[in-house]
Amino acid sequence: MPKTTVYEVKVAFGDCDPAGIVFFPNFLKWMDAASLHFFQSCGVPRWAELEKQIGIIGDPLLEIQTRFVSTATYGDTLQVQTSVVEWRGKVFTQKHVVTRGDTLICEGTEKRAFCVRLDGNRIKAVAVPDSILALCR
Amino acid sequence: MPKTTVYEVKVAFGDCDPAGIVFFPNFLKWMDAASLHFFQSCGVPRWAELEKQIGIIGDPLLEIQTRFVSTATYGDTLQVQTSVVEWRGKVFTQKHVVTRGDTLICEGTEKRAFCVRLDGNRIKAVAVPDSILALCR
Amino acid sequence: MPKTTVYEVKVAFGDCDPAGIVFFPNFLKWMDAASLHFFQSCGVPRWAELEKQIGIIGDPLLEIQTRFVSTATYGDTLQVQTSVVEWRGKVFTQKHVVTRGDTLICEGTEKRAFCVRLDGNRIKAVAVPDSILALCR
Amino acid sequence: MPKTTVYEVKVAFGDCDPAGIVFFPNFLKWMDAASLHFFQSCGVPRWAELEKQIGIIGDPLLEIQTRFVSTATYGDTLQVQTSVVEWRGKVFTQKHVVTRGDTLICEGTEKRAFCVRLDGNRIKAVAVPDSILALCR
Repeated sequence: MPKTTVYEVKVAFGDCDPAGIVFFPNFLKWMDAASLHFFQSCGVPRWAELEKQIGIIGDPLLEIQTRFVSTATYGDTLQVQTSVVEWRGKVFTQKHVVTRGDTLICEGTEKRAFCVRLDGNRIKAVAVPDSILALCR
Repeated sequence: MPKTTVYEVKVAFGDCDPAGIVFFPNFLKWMDAASLHFFQSCGVPRWAELEKQIGIIGDPLLEIQTRFVSTATYGDTLQVQTSVVEWRGKVFTQKHVVTRGDTLICEGTEKRAFCVRLDGNRIKAVAVPDSILALCR
Repeated sequence: MPKTTVYEVKVAFGDCDPAGIVFFPNFLKWMDAASLHFFQSCGVPRWAELEKQIGIIGDPLLEIQTRFVSTATYGDTLQVQTSVVEWRGKVFTQKHVVTRGDTLICEGTEKRAFCVRLDGNRIKAVAVPDSILALCR
Repeated sequence: MPKTTVYEVKVAFGDCDPAGIVFFPNFLKWMDAASLHFFQSCGVPRWAELEKQIGIIGDPLLEIQTRFVSTATYGDTLQVQTSVVEWRGKVFTQKHVVTRGDTLICEGTEKRAFCVRLDGNRIKAVAVPDSILALCR
């Protein structure tokens, strides 16, 4: 079974829309935070340091698929369970399951790649470094 | 060919992250705005009025798949081209193509359903009303 | 000394801007969450319930003054200390002090009023209800 | 009379909260975008280029005072009128007036300073460069 971390979110009033429920892009914001939380919990240095060490600026998304099952609202405390379900060359797949206690709220599957900076604002994917694999697998 | 609308976005500094590029959930925020813009351009009343008329509070997302191709940064002007590519019972599929001039930035495919409010914060999907179909197809 | 609550915030990557520091409107978002946290910690029901009970939809801001002293970045854990420093007719003044351990990050002083809904989207300030005063003073 | 620029905002559904009105930190986000729009309209290069030219990474806020007068909701188009009302050593005061046609929504007064990067994430205010003064006054 892959390493799994849990990232907790307290839903704020301002995270909700006029229908009184969480505005969906916020779930993706929390998945992104959970993604970073996963790597830092595994011992990977924060991006700013990683850039100095091995040039990697982060792990931008290539693709995300999200499925929304139940709504959540302000006052709720949510748990985001995160794991990497596949490592494959330059690309890895990270899964986030968002729950409120026993209730499934939504789940997201991300394809990400570690990237280095080229000139300007262009960036390029690189193979997952062994040092990161060793920490996270 | 389905009706297509264009929603324009000027990327702000605060839309970008420490890597200097748009923080990805913002693309989904803009797709959501483009989705609403599509319906309003087709002549569908705004949600608050629609709720009074036929009980529909909006069209929450069931699922979204997004593929990120190029980065964007502040100062960029983006175009979001939106159309409904499938109407199918209670669920319809809306596609958003985000470009900066000729450059494809990302594209998203959403499954949405028109919903009515039950008691509490629970909501329920209903068949796409004929009045909306007539306007948008 | 007035009642004081502490609301904790973990700064996420997406809360930061291209300068690598927290994009300032996020501090105000957190102050707003801390404001609500204050009232709920004091035992005031959540807005949706309060609206049913006594018509109050929340306590919109009339004015906010914020002073930024130090920067914060992702990975930081911040504390927001919140108290009401003045109750005055319809308007009360809430103060938020944001720190990272011993470091003052910013502080905000808000004037707010409890509001009821009129027709349309118009709202109106009302005197602070005694039931709320009794809980929060 | 000082140079004044107008920055237009279309309010999206997701900018609004469960009370159906704009969640206030979004007004500050738009003022920040209007602030940058002011400088770029005056001919100041974007921050990333300015950093290369003269080390300035932007003009972080020192203080902001905002007064909220009327509410706004999704579908509204807002205008943000921006000018610098005082230049004073390292600090300048920028004013933003947000209107919907003839209706005043809110206004904000910001104290900002142009900053350079020190080591780490620390930054330092510097005197407003003459080249910027010449463009903006």
